[in-house]
Amino acid sequence: MPLLVMKFGGTSVANTDRIRRAAKRVGREVANGYDVIVIVSAMSGETNKLVGYVEETSQLYDAREYDAVVSSGEQVTAGLMALTLQEMDVPARSWQGWQVPLRTTNAHAAARIVEIPTENIMAKFAEGMKVAVVAGFQGIGPDGRITTLGRGGSDTTAVAFAAAFEAERCDIYTDVDGVYTTDPRITSKARKLEKVAFEEMLELASLGAKVLQTRSVELAMRYNVRLRVLSSFEEQSDEAGTLICAEEDIVESKAVNGVAASREEAKMTLISVADRPGIAAAIFGPLSEAGVNVDMIVQNISEEGRTDMTFSCPINQVARAEKALNDVKEKGGLNFREIVADTDVAKISVVGIGMRSQSGVAAKMFKTLSDEGINIKVIATSEIKISVLIDRKYTELAVQALHDAFELEKA
Amino acid sequence: MPLLVMKFGGTSVANTDRIRRAAKRVGREVANGYDVIVIVSAMSGETNKLVGYVEETSQLYDAREYDAVVSSGEQVTAGLMALTLQEMDVPARSWQGWQVPLRTTNAHAAARIVEIPTENIMAKFAEGMKVAVVAGFQGIGPDGRITTLGRGGSDTTAVAFAAAFEAERCDIYTDVDGVYTTDPRITSKARKLEKVAFEEMLELASLGAKVLQTRSVELAMRYNVRLRVLSSFEEQSDEAGTLICAEEDIVESKAVNGVAASREEAKMTLISVADRPGIAAAIFGPLSEAGVNVDMIVQNISEEGRTDMTFSCPINQVARAEKALNDVKEKGGLNFREIVADTDVAKISVVGIGMRSQSGVAAKMFKTLSDEGINIKVIATSEIKISVLIDRKYTELAVQALHDAFELEKA
Repeated sequence: MPLLVMKFGGTSVANTDRIRRAAKRVGREVANGYDVIVIVSAMSGETNKLVGYVEETSQLYDAREYDAVVSSGEQVTAGLMALTLQEMDVPARSWQGWQVPLRTTNAHAAARIVEIPTENIMAKFAEGMKVAVVAGFQGIGPDGRITTLGRGGSDTTAVAFAAAFEAERCDIYTDVDGVYTTDPRITSKARKLEKVAFEEMLELASLGAKVLQTRSVELAMRYNVRLRVLSSFEEQSDEAGTLICAEEDIVESKAVNGVAASREEAKMTLISVADRPGIAAAIFGPLSEAGVNVDMIVQNISEEGRTDMTFSCPINQVARAEKALNDVKEKGGLNFREIVADTDVAKISVVGIGMRSQSGVAAKMFKTLSDEGINIKVIATSEIKISVLIDRKYTELAVQALHDAFELEKA
Repeated sequence: MPLLVMKFGGTSVANTDRIRRAAKRVGREVANGYDVIVIVSAMSGETNKLVGYVEETSQLYDAREYDAVVSSGEQVTAGLMALTLQEMDVPARSWQGWQVPLRTTNAHAAARIVEIPTENIMAKFAEGMKVAVVAGFQGIGPDGRITTLGRGGSDTTAVAFAAAFEAERCDIYTDVDGVYTTDPRITSKARKLEKVAFEEMLELASLGAKVLQTRSVELAMRYNVRLRVLSSFEEQSDEAGTLICAEEDIVESKAVNGVAASREEAKMTLISVADRPGIAAAIFGPLSEAGVNVDMIVQNISEEGRTDMTFSCPINQVARAEKALNDVKEKGGLNFREIVADTDVAKISVVGIGMRSQSGVAAKMFKTLSDEGINIKVIATSEIKISVLIDRKYTELAVQALHDAFELEKA
């Protein structure tokens, strides 16, 4: 029997009516001849409520108790989904993480999946059960206690089940109907993509297209799980949503498939750093130890033994970065004149796997921005992405201009 | 190390503030030198909310899924209580039913406790943990799925833990401060009892003094667990509340220790039943099969081969009882003229273990009611209880008169 994994996020199971609507979709796939594993999130708002209780109770809480409290939300939805399916005469039952058992590392509140044995659930499918409803986001650690995978962990659970059970596809039902060429709030010309390569999705997700958790896309790429994102709020055909798949499943690709914008970056410059071998390590080692996520890095040409070093990091890590660098300076590990933080920037990126074989993308991007009078502050490139930092006030203008220039409204 | 079981009901853990207050009591017992097992209910309102979800979803629900959903409430409180204790520097951790594991029968939603292994928790006490917080009301069935013990099952969980761990005492914290000679809403002379025998408590509980679940008192009696009921909302000394204990722990007992009233009884009479051997079985067999809880039974003197048979049962079972008896009549298994149901009665009982050795209690009760002009409709007696049915409008008057007559306001 072919097998499908279907995952429903918090807004898709927000109350018993919505659970019923989601169950109908599951019932339809069963009627299509599939065995289905359903992964559910907590009803929307529940996880925040539970986290709130924990934070009211304790500042430096024991993550093992946090996990015991917070995992209860998915447990409730799983039971209700199984009951709803049974009410529709679809043979179903619920599993909690520890019952599968989905084994994880012992890193409570941020555990990683170690193993998903398939025997228990497959035995029930063999007995005639059609749907296994599994509480997402949770597992059991080597200490026999409940673990959770961190926020958004239900996407990761779904992909891991699809990999373990060799599912035909993993459908992620959410409150958006797919992945777009850019944020539709920025330009109405944004177009829903029919297919996106894993690599593109990773760049788009990490750039702020928050449709899927990055970790789940990485996992899907590693195990070649065909992922589909689609809306649980619209009636739709089997071709709905966006398929996230391997590059070779995409016949022909444009140079650029999407434009992403992030307003959460800050630009930091170390002015007049004494340039010497190992200087980059002296700067970025301490930043890494301080937990600063450095993204783009640019080093100016050295003059008279001194240089300027520029990098970007999330705005809310600026203070931490400054402290880390000043600490190294005080201890004599680093010599610079001053740190300048510019928190008024945005990062604009064009992404596309076609970039690998098509040239001129960078030139076209820079010219487009220049024509609009937008100054580029920092540039960084990867194989399938070109990113720039610009003044934040030009964010919308830049996205709209690039979307037009690369003709992303056209399929 | 001496060990104590402390149980907190839903109103005692209704929010994080109340959980903190409860945790302080636990901390005090730890300071007194005890290892403590804390049994918690769900935050008040939570279980009703979860049951509501299940009932919205399905009328004839799968009790296994019901258990998975409903048991999550206690799981949350257990984690929060453990966190609160840790915050107070009391070494604590939470256990869910399946982690202990508290093994039960497979009767989902109404499971009975089979076994509570003590090794896991005792090992942690040996390592220096001072408090084990256990989610009440739940266990794990032979099918490896979560079971629940039925409403009020947290009291039963507490007593079962006290028995398994041979606790010095089992303290039940609730929203009343003990067991009273009668309902204080009926007479302000009602006095809190310092000690009550198990047998008395069973009669009082089943008669409507809803302080403790009957099942938990039965269990305490069987394993001789000293139970204390006390309020979680008042500061109190170690002598607070009411101790429920074996008869031999009560030095001297008055003939009557309490007066109970129940307004949930109905009186039913089968008029002109053909009297023959086996007639009682022909009536009460079918009632039992129909799930009618018959309490008092009275048979009039037989005249000309016919008799009247009167019994009492809960008001909400009257329709069911009438249907069951008419069904038997139709099938020819029983011959009577008509059924008369009187739903306008109350059951008044006087209870006391001292009754065994002191005579004249019944006579005094009947005279007291007669002096007030209250007619007695049905009488039933046991070794430690005398019950009567009277017109419901006299409930308060009867209770007040009997409370005075047996001088229950005096210790």
